Amino acid sequence: MLPSASHSVASLDLLGIGNAIVDVLAYAEDSLLVELGLIKGAMTLVDEERIEALYRRMGPAREVSGGSCANTIAAFAALGGRAAFIGRVKDDAMGRVFAHDICNAGVLFRSRPASDGPATARCLVFVTPDAQRTMQTYLGACVELGPDDVDEELVAAAAVTYLEGYLWDRPEAKAACRKAAAIAHAHGRQVALSLSDPFCVARWREEFRELIAREVDILFANEAEIMALYEAASFDDALQQVRRQVACAALTRGPKGSVVVRGDEVHVIDAAPVHRLVDTTGAGDLYAAGFLRGLSLGLDLGACGRLGSLCAAEIIQQFGARAERPLAPLLDRVR
Amino acid sequence: MLPSASHSVASLDLLGIGNAIVDVLAYAEDSLLVELGLIKGAMTLVDEERIEALYRRMGPAREVSGGSCANTIAAFAALGGRAAFIGRVKDDAMGRVFAHDICNAGVLFRSRPASDGPATARCLVFVTPDAQRTMQTYLGACVELGPDDVDEELVAAAAVTYLEGYLWDRPEAKAACRKAAAIAHAHGRQVALSLSDPFCVARWREEFRELIAREVDILFANEAEIMALYEAASFDDALQQVRRQVACAALTRGPKGSVVVRGDEVHVIDAAPVHRLVDTTGAGDLYAAGFLRGLSLGLDLGACGRLGSLCAAEIIQQFGARAERPLAPLLDRVR
Repeated sequence: MLPSASHSVASLDLLGIGNAIVDVLAYAEDSLLVELGLIKGAMTLVDEERIEALYRRMGPAREVSGGSCANTIAAFAALGGRAAFIGRVKDDAMGRVFAHDICNAGVLFRSRPASDGPATARCLVFVTPDAQRTMQTYLGACVELGPDDVDEELVAAAAVTYLEGYLWDRPEAKAACRKAAAIAHAHGRQVALSLSDPFCVARWREEFRELIAREVDILFANEAEIMALYEAASFDDALQQVRRQVACAALTRGPKGSVVVRGDEVHVIDAAPVHRLVDTTGAGDLYAAGFLRGLSLGLDLGACGRLGSLCAAEIIQQFGARAERPLAPLLDRVR
Repeated sequence: MLPSASHSVASLDLLGIGNAIVDVLAYAEDSLLVELGLIKGAMTLVDEERIEALYRRMGPAREVSGGSCANTIAAFAALGGRAAFIGRVKDDAMGRVFAHDICNAGVLFRSRPASDGPATARCLVFVTPDAQRTMQTYLGACVELGPDDVDEELVAAAAVTYLEGYLWDRPEAKAACRKAAAIAHAHGRQVALSLSDPFCVARWREEFRELIAREVDILFANEAEIMALYEAASFDDALQQVRRQVACAALTRGPKGSVVVRGDEVHVIDAAPVHRLVDTTGAGDLYAAGFLRGLSLGLDLGACGRLGSLCAAEIIQQFGARAERPLAPLLDRVR
């Protein structure tokens, strides 16, 4: 919990590249989503005028650092991993909140904040009574993320570089990802990718398929995303396809648990018990954190999946995707 | 959950006057409190330099609108009451967050934000594993609250004007409270007071005793506060004293429940069940909201206490003192 990044660049377990976003979370009835014309369960990109209009209609909220990849990196650090993050904020109040939170989670974050240009990104998260989340994102300062932000020293040093599919929505960010993947592989490192959102997959299906086949070592996707990727008729159909395309994949299925595959290995993991479902924001992000932390500790693949499930169960029992309570005790439950 | 203050000034159930604060909540081990020299469970006022230093040492956090009185007012509105709030923010990012949250909770908030001077107030809340909260407050723009901010129209219109004891720490704010109480009584309205904090009570014991005897119609205090007020050797000793001094009092005792008194009536209320204790921030604030809402609905005094207990139980099962989920369903459990 103390200011950190005390670990050296030379010994990184994980580097994340993603959108640096502050989430603004509020409870909402389904009727409000209908009235505002929001696509339930999806992440939609909106402009500044629209985000302001939506914020005016949103209930009382709470501000929590977010961003899918950043959530994963923060949780990975909370699990004791040595992690770094690359993302763009502005030097404004919300940018300072984001930087404080990720640095004080123990993550190395040395991206310089922009002194001008668009404000730090915000994501309005509408949490409905069924604990589903519907997200409206204004990318703000994130749109400036490009190849120049890829810190070669960090990529070369990190055992795994983790990218979020959301970055494909911006050509410059996509170029940054491709550059990072090339550097990682040139240094014998691995590349991980999260597919982020089924609509994002639909927008970039062909590029993702090619990327996964050629450049991705570890793939994260939920059921809707993996089925969208392969236009599969069933989850099992998608599972069979992904096994032929990527060395390692973790596929999450909400309350149905997850399936993790690596070569001949296939583990079918039950979801961890949940006592009070509050908000599903961050379930996938925290699953990825637990899974990657398990891999970095050399746990067997099934234990990696179980750790992912435990982290996901923890985060959906609270509001927002940054854990309020320590995650490290979960490690004892899989070792 | 929609933008509001649609109710007219002419029909207010409750007006709150208090510090307008954004809470910055983070989990912390007890050892960090020791290291930082913090008084566990208390609210301490600090200057800007100190709050910045403490924030640097604080773990990853979440920003939620706060302020004891403002929490009560927001919850009262969530319970369907017609409420207004008077408090000072600056026109900065955190001030806009505060205003958004209280307005969109359905509260009439027309205090004009300051365009210069100190920043919007922040309270760092360290939540320890036992769910206790330790608070460090930088008052910022709140120090400008004074008699001129007392909107006579609102005070005259509100059935009850609710003051927080914390305001006694600033002479100008105290003067605002005395002015509001005089206006309220001149219009045949009631005045409620929360004692806020046992250390605050110790600082202003004599003034509070006199105020309670002369000007307060409804008093809220927890066990530590009421015992500090009367320098009582036992809770029951304090209870007997307060019955002689004030028309109506609600005394909260954490897991031991609460005792509410009004004239000859005395109700001993059990605490409502809690499944997952997370953070006690706001327990007293939400109890007051439920109790006052019960009174405004004309419920019998025992039901007012039970509604207070249900609201308190709800808020301590989440982080922060603004309810993430609707409070209105709790009303059905006491009627």
